[in-house]
Amino acid sequence: MTGELDFIAALRALATAPEARGLDDDAALLGGLVLTHDMIAEGVHYLATDPPERVAEKLVAVTLSDLAAKGATPVVVLLGYCLGDGEWDRRFLAGLATALADYDCKLLGGDTIAVPGARVLGLTAIGEAGERVPDRAGGRAGDGLWLIGTLGDSAAGLAQLLADPAATGPLVDACQRPRALIAEGCALAPIASAMMDVSDGLLIDAARMARASGVRIVIDLALIPLSPAFRTARGDDRAARLFAATGGDDYALLAALRPGAKAKVTKCLPSGAQMVRIGELVAGAGIALIDDGEPVELPEHLGHEHRS
Amino acid sequence: MTGELDFIAALRALATAPEARGLDDDAALLGGLVLTHDMIAEGVHYLATDPPERVAEKLVAVTLSDLAAKGATPVVVLLGYCLGDGEWDRRFLAGLATALADYDCKLLGGDTIAVPGARVLGLTAIGEAGERVPDRAGGRAGDGLWLIGTLGDSAAGLAQLLADPAATGPLVDACQRPRALIAEGCALAPIASAMMDVSDGLLIDAARMARASGVRIVIDLALIPLSPAFRTARGDDRAARLFAATGGDDYALLAALRPGAKAKVTKCLPSGAQMVRIGELVAGAGIALIDDGEPVELPEHLGHEHRS
Repeated sequence: MTGELDFIAALRALATAPEARGLDDDAALLGGLVLTHDMIAEGVHYLATDPPERVAEKLVAVTLSDLAAKGATPVVVLLGYCLGDGEWDRRFLAGLATALADYDCKLLGGDTIAVPGARVLGLTAIGEAGERVPDRAGGRAGDGLWLIGTLGDSAAGLAQLLADPAATGPLVDACQRPRALIAEGCALAPIASAMMDVSDGLLIDAARMARASGVRIVIDLALIPLSPAFRTARGDDRAARLFAATGGDDYALLAALRPGAKAKVTKCLPSGAQMVRIGELVAGAGIALIDDGEPVELPEHLGHEHRS
Repeated sequence: MTGELDFIAALRALATAPEARGLDDDAALLGGLVLTHDMIAEGVHYLATDPPERVAEKLVAVTLSDLAAKGATPVVVLLGYCLGDGEWDRRFLAGLATALADYDCKLLGGDTIAVPGARVLGLTAIGEAGERVPDRAGGRAGDGLWLIGTLGDSAAGLAQLLADPAATGPLVDACQRPRALIAEGCALAPIASAMMDVSDGLLIDAARMARASGVRIVIDLALIPLSPAFRTARGDDRAARLFAATGGDDYALLAALRPGAKAKVTKCLPSGAQMVRIGELVAGAGIALIDDGEPVELPEHLGHEHRS
């Protein structure tokens, strides 16, 4: 095998239970439960210089984001932890306590090991499914493509941290303290044709939805929501928008909605939630980019393959 | 914090849900489900020279052993995987397929990441609880202490592998291919006062049961079951028996049974299962060793702290 894609294809052949959804979704189903497992590694998914509290908060958020994408409410987590030095461990636990309290989610168990070298941390999260659990495969031609959240903040924050590990500000916060959009996911799940979270980059994740749904997805770069902090740091020209559409680590929610469905969801959204239409699902395959109506060539890298 | 024990004490303060059982058990409960998460690391829990198929089989067995200890039947697993070279990955998956088929357990999902350095692998297993889920805390003075399986084979096999990575034989098999005693656990769960698996060493695990149950446990070294292969390789004198009682990685089942309860379980045990009485629970605290009636001093190390 040559890489993660081959490995996942081989794994898929093992995961024949319908509840596994062919490993083609953010999470799996078991009865009325939604299950997901995420791993993060030092030097890959977080920086060794990141505050340990933030690493814990990020591990919780990125894992619970998979539940949000299925409209599930977090219930419990199991932690897989690699021990390091005591002070780091103590601060990690403080962050874990904060994050679990924020999401009203309980630590149920897990495993702790001592290993030399870079830490790898795992979290299994289990949530209660709502009445409907949208997958990635239900999108249909004619649906609008909607996004809740902003894009690019986390990638811009990572760039700031790589230049200066002591950097602070809203972009660094987006990178170190993402939020799982639980309430937003619960509001969208009953009516979304398809839903997922944007973790690896909008373009690569949208391509996955297109493939699973058997449609083509056209995204208008001009419609991508950018935060004021992002605009200040990176501008909002086409290059900045392509950066935002491929940076990843956004944990925004991406949903396909039938025409007219948005009116049904708006009143259920938490106040302040930004939900914008960024494109549409059409007949065909793959993804396409436009910018204010003008076709734009796809960038070579649509996002992060290795984090799928 | 100075080590894993401090970390786990701090984790315990977080795990306040009654279903978490104070993190003092092999697994946690959620409705009718039993949940556990285990991690294994290259160079710590398995050797870099071990065949990858065996690593997969071991990961599955050690994780499902926690379900066996609760009398639960495995249903699904989520895999946390660190990609390495393609050939290793391919062989690991082949072993995973074999092991999951053996236990009639389905792969439901998980996460795959690419990291430099030693691999860390995680597995979350979810099983269906039986009518009764014994914990470690239910042992009472007057109970007999029973063991299903043999002790020391895996530690003896590891010693052979460390001397010669190409070593083969029943002891190496015990080390690389442990079995989770699912049927045995299901047979014992309805009547065991307390039950757990022996993963870190009989003495340290029995001490945990004693602490959780608020009793003293007296173990007779002369009664510890040793396999013919173990006797051939290491003898069966007191030193060999102490080695077997502290070596760990056994995945035997340790159960406290009321007097007379053994008769009720025997007919439900799979044919060939060896179940022997190795000691008793008495009033007091801690553990004590005897050898054919004579008191034996406890060894300094009761087992592996870091794998608890």
